Amino acid sequence: DPDSLQDICVADLNSTVKVNGFPCKSNATAEDFFSNHLATAGATNNSYGSLVTPANVEKLPGLNTLGVSLSRIDYAPGGLNPPHVHPRATEIVFVLYGKLDVGFITTANALFSKTIAAGEVFVFPKGLVHFQKNNGRKPAAVISAFNSQLPGTQSIAATLFSAAPPVPDDVLAKAFHIGDDEVEKIKAGFAPPK
Amino acid sequence: DPDSLQDICVADLNSTVKVNGFPCKSNATAEDFFSNHLATAGATNNSYGSLVTPANVEKLPGLNTLGVSLSRIDYAPGGLNPPHVHPRATEIVFVLYGKLDVGFITTANALFSKTIAAGEVFVFPKGLVHFQKNNGRKPAAVISAFNSQLPGTQSIAATLFSAAPPVPDDVLAKAFHIGDDEVEKIKAGFAPPK
Amino acid sequence: DPDSLQDICVADLNSTVKVNGFPCKSNATAEDFFSNHLATAGATNNSYGSLVTPANVEKLPGLNTLGVSLSRIDYAPGGLNPPHVHPRATEIVFVLYGKLDVGFITTANALFSKTIAAGEVFVFPKGLVHFQKNNGRKPAAVISAFNSQLPGTQSIAATLFSAAPPVPDDVLAKAFHIGDDEVEKIKAGFAPPK
Amino acid sequence: DPDSLQDICVADLNSTVKVNGFPCKSNATAEDFFSNHLATAGATNNSYGSLVTPANVEKLPGLNTLGVSLSRIDYAPGGLNPPHVHPRATEIVFVLYGKLDVGFITTANALFSKTIAAGEVFVFPKGLVHFQKNNGRKPAAVISAFNSQLPGTQSIAATLFSAAPPVPDDVLAKAFHIGDDEVEKIKAGFAPPK
Amino acid sequence: DPDSLQDICVADLNSTVKVNGFPCKSNATAEDFFSNHLATAGATNNSYGSLVTPANVEKLPGLNTLGVSLSRIDYAPGGLNPPHVHPRATEIVFVLYGKLDVGFITTANALFSKTIAAGEVFVFPKGLVHFQKNNGRKPAAVISAFNSQLPGTQSIAATLFSAAPPVPDDVLAKAFHIGDDEVEKIKAGFAPPK
Amino acid sequence: DPDSLQDICVADLNSTVKVNGFPCKSNATAEDFFSNHLATAGATNNSYGSLVTPANVEKLPGLNTLGVSLSRIDYAPGGLNPPHVHPRATEIVFVLYGKLDVGFITTANALFSKTIAAGEVFVFPKGLVHFQKNNGRKPAAVISAFNSQLPGTQSIAATLFSAAPPVPDDVLAKAFHIGDDEVEKIKAGFAPPK
Repeated sequence: DPDSLQDICVADLNSTVKVNGFPCKSNATAEDFFSNHLATAGATNNSYGSLVTPANVEKLPGLNTLGVSLSRIDYAPGGLNPPHVHPRATEIVFVLYGKLDVGFITTANALFSKTIAAGEVFVFPKGLVHFQKNNGRKPAAVISAFNSQLPGTQSIAATLFSAAPPVPDDVLAKAFHIGDDEVEKIKAGFAPPK
Repeated sequence: DPDSLQDICVADLNSTVKVNGFPCKSNATAEDFFSNHLATAGATNNSYGSLVTPANVEKLPGLNTLGVSLSRIDYAPGGLNPPHVHPRATEIVFVLYGKLDVGFITTANALFSKTIAAGEVFVFPKGLVHFQKNNGRKPAAVISAFNSQLPGTQSIAATLFSAAPPVPDDVLAKAFHIGDDEVEKIKAGFAPPK
Repeated sequence: DPDSLQDICVADLNSTVKVNGFPCKSNATAEDFFSNHLATAGATNNSYGSLVTPANVEKLPGLNTLGVSLSRIDYAPGGLNPPHVHPRATEIVFVLYGKLDVGFITTANALFSKTIAAGEVFVFPKGLVHFQKNNGRKPAAVISAFNSQLPGTQSIAATLFSAAPPVPDDVLAKAFHIGDDEVEKIKAGFAPPK
Repeated sequence: DPDSLQDICVADLNSTVKVNGFPCKSNATAEDFFSNHLATAGATNNSYGSLVTPANVEKLPGLNTLGVSLSRIDYAPGGLNPPHVHPRATEIVFVLYGKLDVGFITTANALFSKTIAAGEVFVFPKGLVHFQKNNGRKPAAVISAFNSQLPGTQSIAATLFSAAPPVPDDVLAKAFHIGDDEVEKIKAGFAPPK
Repeated sequence: DPDSLQDICVADLNSTVKVNGFPCKSNATAEDFFSNHLATAGATNNSYGSLVTPANVEKLPGLNTLGVSLSRIDYAPGGLNPPHVHPRATEIVFVLYGKLDVGFITTANALFSKTIAAGEVFVFPKGLVHFQKNNGRKPAAVISAFNSQLPGTQSIAATLFSAAPPVPDDVLAKAFHIGDDEVEKIKAGFAPPK
Repeated sequence: DPDSLQDICVADLNSTVKVNGFPCKSNATAEDFFSNHLATAGATNNSYGSLVTPANVEKLPGLNTLGVSLSRIDYAPGGLNPPHVHPRATEIVFVLYGKLDVGFITTANALFSKTIAAGEVFVFPKGLVHFQKNNGRKPAAVISAFNSQLPGTQSIAATLFSAAPPVPDDVLAKAFHIGDDEVEKIKAGFAPPK
């Protein structure tokens, strides 16, 4: 993240001028540095059984130029935060409750994985594919910290199989060593995108 | 923080070679990216009624070169995390339980303050003096995230009144517009340093 | 990439001390800033019909601390450089010969794609999934430039389906909305890893 | 500081658009890179017996995006530049004339101090509390250089005891191990703020 | 280069607001990440017998905030890309065809030089004076990669002898240990500037 | 400059391990942050009538990782600090005494110049060619600040005409539009290099 060139530069989220990050609004208050978005558990009744609730610069404008943000992730029993990358941040998770199987894979294709429980912490280095799965019988939740005001998320399966316009079938078939029909089947599992 | 030049560079905390951050050790395992230091509440039976428990690179060597870390802060009723600065990081806190009065002061001497409760979040911009106080009747705790592997802490009062060797009395007397005797009295309140 | 703190710091690739990047060797010569690794076409007789030949800091030690590197990528007719991310770099390709269908996907799941021919250039922003496919009848080749001395590559399908130890089947099944048997079948397509 | 993305980007100090640093004005001249603000000694007839005169981006708009600035500090005999931090810069001082007792305190509460005279140089690392005092019988002056276009200054005593709105008495009393009455007395010494 | 704070920030080259780099335009397309400027050889019928054709952010607006760019350089037989510096980038060249004598000089006045041929690569570290000369009988061409969206070029001889307004003769005479008449003669060789 | 990852990392100038910057020595004292190298005027009885005396990391080891340094430059009447670039820093000069004609040239070949006198300040943006000349009848001196621990200096004329091994005559002749004999004459003016 870029160094901040003044104490604070609260994002003017509605500015017509777009810059790297956001322009600063003129009047800042303590509210700009506050969020209650993470106070309640996210709804996990979706196909993955998990939900990420961000408190990034788009929700917490005081974070602009400061290079940090948080998310809360909730997991139903069996819930998965599917393999994904954050192009702009390392992530460190603190387990609020429950138990999770977590892992990241290096560019040398080595999996680093661990089971973590309430109060425990795990690190996912910048730009590497990682995931968390609640293999327990109870809900789980974590607070995630990122060293970016807007880390971004590429959920791998959805990125490849539900982009718009779509990634061509032949690319995916060859990449995964599968047939076009299997590609189509996987794509169907992601449609309609929600 | 500096960009990481490889996937991971787990701190070799015992290396005889000292560099900016830490040299990397040869074999990394998932344990290097894990910590349970924050799982239990810190002991708050001290003069401030609060305790900071860090999970920085010194405790979580996988953080080396990755530019992020966490702390847990526990507060007894009435407990204070006294005014301090982190020279190398912005901080963002998530309240685990309890209620806190928090604030930071800009270089224009403006106080930004707020009462925050469980599940709520507040940001303390890089290098600015800030504090948290538990004015409630119950214990409180937060998870703090920093965009530095080792944010550092200068607790203002202790820095000035209990440094070793000591900051000269005349500097402190003139700075605070008080007498040398009052300086000595405040210094006495910090001795013996612990 | 970190700023260089001296004119040159040629990587001592065999140093027993490991740091972010590499320590510098004592005597640098012009050879340290030279490479002929990209002079000949890579062998594309593999399952993807493509080969990436890097000239990064591991091959060109003069690049250490300088924040840039090159690769050559060769593609047989029908060859694919499968969807992947570089955790530490933006990439810009220049087509040496042939024609390629290229694309990247943003974190908003939007595909940006284009057909590019000899002498043309395309950009893949840092950390985003991207691919190139030679849908022509002739071989193709590009020179790729990165703003990192060691950009790293996570080839998505291989990362997920051929990591060691393996990513659990249930994670992949749930992520792709497929059955465990299909996961096993895809994994089999990657074994033995080579 | 962020890297400059063009040769120069002279601050448009009056722009209605606010960004990290400043937008660039359209026409730059040599005057934008020049300042005579530091040519004459500052008036030291104030309670501290010292005055800081900045030549930062707000006075020298050519500094925008370039990551450096200067100040001149004048000290009457007995004058003090009270303990303070610069959130965004390391400082290095060159003594123009006179003699000064200077020091900084690390986050491990170690004081590094020294008496420096005309022509001598001392370094105050980024974000650490530091001070200078003229314990001689003659005026003193320094030129200070910073690696930030706008280093910012938090003068510790004033930050804590004369912020607006005020830092609560109970925070200060507990932080300094003093009574509320003593807090009020110190606050009174800073009022009216000027 | 500054870290990108979002996936993409395509340069709005016509914005009336000027910032470090460029503001982002609202609608990005794949065309913004594409260039064909380097597809054809540049005209080398000039006094140096060489031409640099850039594909930097001004020609390829998708590069904004991404910290990389390319150029193509063409050389007639005997052609010279005269000694110059890039204030904001390291350069790495890949020879498309022909043969070149290349070199850079460190701040310790050591020349690192080498003859490179088609398919070979050479690195010119950031900010150091360097040059390429085609001493062969055939045309030559390279692709140059830079770790800056706009590396900038100061062609040394032209910078000193054809700036506007001109660098004073006495400065140049003393710098090169030559007479004012020789300075005027060299300046004449650069006039009219084109 | 890279962010410092701890309060201080005093350069171990004699370490056998070489890294970007310097390794840190184990015991730091206030002396490591002090220098008296700039206290006395440098000897200007050389061919340029000027001398640069640095207080960079090599002389002031406490500067390591902190990204700032100073120099003192002395000028005899008529003395010139010849056109040069600093590959790693912006420079800002404060005139101690005397009067100087100063200037820098942008990559668009525009000269920004000004006459500055005692107490005045001028900025030379990072990586751009600049010079100072004392056209007065009295000695002059400046303090220069840089945002790098080791800015480096390429004195243009010496770089081109007295490098070792030498830059080939044909490169210089073509670059300056002069004959080989004139190149040899200028080279002779720099020999023996000292």
